Amino acid sequence: MSDAFNKELEKNKGNYAPLSPISFIAWAANVYPERLAVVYGEQQQTWKETYTRCRQFASALVRLGVEYGDTVAIMAPNTPVMFEAHYGIPMAGAVINALNTRLDSVAIAFMLQHGGAKVLLVDREYKGVVSAALATLDEKPLLIDIADANLADLPPVGDLEYEVFIETGDPLFNQQLPEDEWDAIALSYTSGTTGDPKGVVTHHRGAYLNALGNVVTWTMPYFSRYLWTLPMFHCNGWCFPWTLAAVAGTSICLRRVESDVIFKLMRDHDVTHMCGAPVVYNTLINASVSKGQMLKSRIKGMIAGAAPPRSVIEGAELLGIDLTHVYGLTEVYGPAAVCAQHPEWEKLSLEERAQKNGRQGVRYVVQEGMDVLDPETMRPVARDGQSMGEICFRGNITMKGYLKNPKATQSAFNGGWFHTGDLAVIDTFGYVTIKDRSKDIIISGGENISTIEIEDVLCQDSRILEAAVVAQADERWGEVPCAFITLKSSETVMTENDVIEFCRERLARYKCPKRVIFGVLPKTSTGKIQKAVLRDRLRETNY
Amino acid sequence: MSDAFNKELEKNKGNYAPLSPISFIAWAANVYPERLAVVYGEQQQTWKETYTRCRQFASALVRLGVEYGDTVAIMAPNTPVMFEAHYGIPMAGAVINALNTRLDSVAIAFMLQHGGAKVLLVDREYKGVVSAALATLDEKPLLIDIADANLADLPPVGDLEYEVFIETGDPLFNQQLPEDEWDAIALSYTSGTTGDPKGVVTHHRGAYLNALGNVVTWTMPYFSRYLWTLPMFHCNGWCFPWTLAAVAGTSICLRRVESDVIFKLMRDHDVTHMCGAPVVYNTLINASVSKGQMLKSRIKGMIAGAAPPRSVIEGAELLGIDLTHVYGLTEVYGPAAVCAQHPEWEKLSLEERAQKNGRQGVRYVVQEGMDVLDPETMRPVARDGQSMGEICFRGNITMKGYLKNPKATQSAFNGGWFHTGDLAVIDTFGYVTIKDRSKDIIISGGENISTIEIEDVLCQDSRILEAAVVAQADERWGEVPCAFITLKSSETVMTENDVIEFCRERLARYKCPKRVIFGVLPKTSTGKIQKAVLRDRLRETNY
Repeated sequence: MSDAFNKELEKNKGNYAPLSPISFIAWAANVYPERLAVVYGEQQQTWKETYTRCRQFASALVRLGVEYGDTVAIMAPNTPVMFEAHYGIPMAGAVINALNTRLDSVAIAFMLQHGGAKVLLVDREYKGVVSAALATLDEKPLLIDIADANLADLPPVGDLEYEVFIETGDPLFNQQLPEDEWDAIALSYTSGTTGDPKGVVTHHRGAYLNALGNVVTWTMPYFSRYLWTLPMFHCNGWCFPWTLAAVAGTSICLRRVESDVIFKLMRDHDVTHMCGAPVVYNTLINASVSKGQMLKSRIKGMIAGAAPPRSVIEGAELLGIDLTHVYGLTEVYGPAAVCAQHPEWEKLSLEERAQKNGRQGVRYVVQEGMDVLDPETMRPVARDGQSMGEICFRGNITMKGYLKNPKATQSAFNGGWFHTGDLAVIDTFGYVTIKDRSKDIIISGGENISTIEIEDVLCQDSRILEAAVVAQADERWGEVPCAFITLKSSETVMTENDVIEFCRERLARYKCPKRVIFGVLPKTSTGKIQKAVLRDRLRETNY
Repeated sequence: MSDAFNKELEKNKGNYAPLSPISFIAWAANVYPERLAVVYGEQQQTWKETYTRCRQFASALVRLGVEYGDTVAIMAPNTPVMFEAHYGIPMAGAVINALNTRLDSVAIAFMLQHGGAKVLLVDREYKGVVSAALATLDEKPLLIDIADANLADLPPVGDLEYEVFIETGDPLFNQQLPEDEWDAIALSYTSGTTGDPKGVVTHHRGAYLNALGNVVTWTMPYFSRYLWTLPMFHCNGWCFPWTLAAVAGTSICLRRVESDVIFKLMRDHDVTHMCGAPVVYNTLINASVSKGQMLKSRIKGMIAGAAPPRSVIEGAELLGIDLTHVYGLTEVYGPAAVCAQHPEWEKLSLEERAQKNGRQGVRYVVQEGMDVLDPETMRPVARDGQSMGEICFRGNITMKGYLKNPKATQSAFNGGWFHTGDLAVIDTFGYVTIKDRSKDIIISGGENISTIEIEDVLCQDSRILEAAVVAQADERWGEVPCAFITLKSSETVMTENDVIEFCRERLARYKCPKRVIFGVLPKTSTGKIQKAVLRDRLRETNY
């Protein structure tokens, strides 16, 4: 660097500030104080009120003894308090640890202990599981009870109720930006299907950038009305609590993903945006078909967690939801890839559009790199839509690493990229398509078989609700596909042969399941099918 | 900070990349390779082609001997080469110094010498002024001649033509991000009305953030079609060359701001966005009135440089342009404040809307702070719309400082804020309104008089085209206002008394001009009225 451009041109208070999404709420509260920030049932809060409450919350935490870099955990559904926690906790200099409300007490106890939570806020709905978890801990966090006017009959979790607690805080609390933008803003445990959960540590810089990345990727206008169908405990709601302040939008909160409630909220509040897994959209599509629900105006929906099948893309379109398919993981702040759409696709058939939109896509513009690499050589695979490799990310929308787990951190960042563990191909357009999780791929007679490809075919049969394919040991081929299937209703008739025949018409012979098992599929608390359990079940059948 | 959240959680290549807007062009070229990046007359370039050309440009600079941190200057109107320079130069690790094409050879020579340009790219239109400038320099930069197919008859500036030059570069040049995001990306000289121009040094981090800030502030969608009515030599076109890559938009280039050309381009290319000073919009409004030009679909226009008068707001609205009023300076990367609109304003009268939209507004969401401070105490003035202070900024959208001018840098950042030199008030809504430049304010009998306020009143008279008010020495009051006025046409009749009477009906007596001088107003190369020249003229009249 030429000396002249750095000499006596250092950072100072006037030209440098650590990036943090907490600066967005001050903006929203100052510029649009009277616009709604949060709606929940009868409760409505402006940005000015919400900012004041968050400052009180932060101040109350500090007065309670919370120090810079302490962990503050929260177990709550998508209520206003959960939203406020995304500001109040980091404004106090603390790290927010949002707990998955579907977890059992053993997992919760592990996280509280491992994350070292000093304070734990708990919605009364989770009193049972939290009490059981706390009973096993030697060092217990300070408990704050979250009441809900809509559920007045639930007994308190502890002595100190949230509203009373924040009353102890200063409404003019002077929140500070983080000392360093690389400091932690959140701790989020992955729901790993095997082994202990890992604690993903994210930083203020990444949260700030991904919050803006959401706006750019989705062209989100000011005053967007966002329906909280995506749990905020999933990677901090993909950074949307922070995004919404940057556009002075409104959070429409809800406790549970139920179609009647959702349709009512959509109508009452003219919802413009929502996020969720395919199951959320499926629920709406099915309810709409049976009840003739229609939306007044079109909604933009982000969908992630699995590629949206044709039926979801079509159903959502008819319902009035325009889907954007995104892809990510907790380790990359939620979505860090998007199946960026091209206007030309509108002319394609539904089938072709489903294929185009089913891809995991390309990097977010705020993520620096995304590619499919050979994990041995770390070189990009050919962009032929055939060669398989691992999806890797690099850039600012990537976690610091795993808490107290340097081995896992090092392994995740091996070769200077973050390894997702997802196996994929990349096409000539540079769009990535997931083929399988590394541990799920089936190797049969030396050929890689994508279980997702088989599952996609199975779901095209109108009798099948859900399908999961895993490897079954085979003397001749090494491994062969075995399909676990849930039928649409108990009256549906389908035999193993029907399934295999259906696949034979659509797949290469070696990819067709050799065995079919009908029944309910085991799932994790976040709704992911537990293939490890299916594999165990298979081994135990001695087949 | 709790040790756990930093221990073995350092930055690595996988989770940290310096912020730089040059990463946007790789994104646009990979995701939307076939969409148009640049249009200029018959010339059309896709993002893929433009990215390739920029890589060649960068590579050619490196092969020419340009090193990391060297200055590369360019003197060109808003042509494709000027656009490419915003990527090619920083991709080579160099600092872009875009020269104001309206400057004379003395100013150009000063900038080339002071900025230490190693290479200078020159559009043939500026051969004369550049040759004169170079003749005075001992050390001359390497000259690259920019030809324009539309102006084939102009003689070359030097031996090496741009197209031939970039042919020497590698189209697969592997551009690197900056070593540090704090490193300089651009050097831009202010057009200071007195003294030597100051070299504003901006960094990659700020350019990246303000490029995204433009998208958020304006809700800019993908594939925006942006008309280049704003010179790219003004604070790098307010970062829009970089913004446009982040949304895969199209730059509609043009050599000159002429209403016929602009209306044709708007129609031919379905322009969606444009920026400019009030004079640009005035030109269009006046042309539209005389020729009945109308736009097919509405355009979003950013306006800055002066508060948009009622006639401009109304005229633009009727024409089909929705204005957003922004405010900034070269030191803050162009606009760093916006008069953020409220939907409620739509119900107001035109006059009330003009008043609301005439304010300089609030900070960009990516700028950390903006306030009106008492420059003595550095404390915020009362938010009463009356108390005057200086507009100050702080945050990431602020320059590193002035090149080789530590004294000016220190003074600009005195007290931990960047001082704009603009005097203003701030209202209860937190919106800032400029009253005057520090050096322009008139102090009469101990009262501060805003010259802008008087000028605003004068422009309400339909006979007056332009007005500038300066202080005139007065034995009794210290200073009194003197108005310089340009009438709309040579046939317009207006006397000194007419002007004073007009003001008396609308202003406090002490604010009314005591003297009126008719004639053409002297302006800087960027179109700013030179009040210093007017003050000199006044002193010389011995009045």
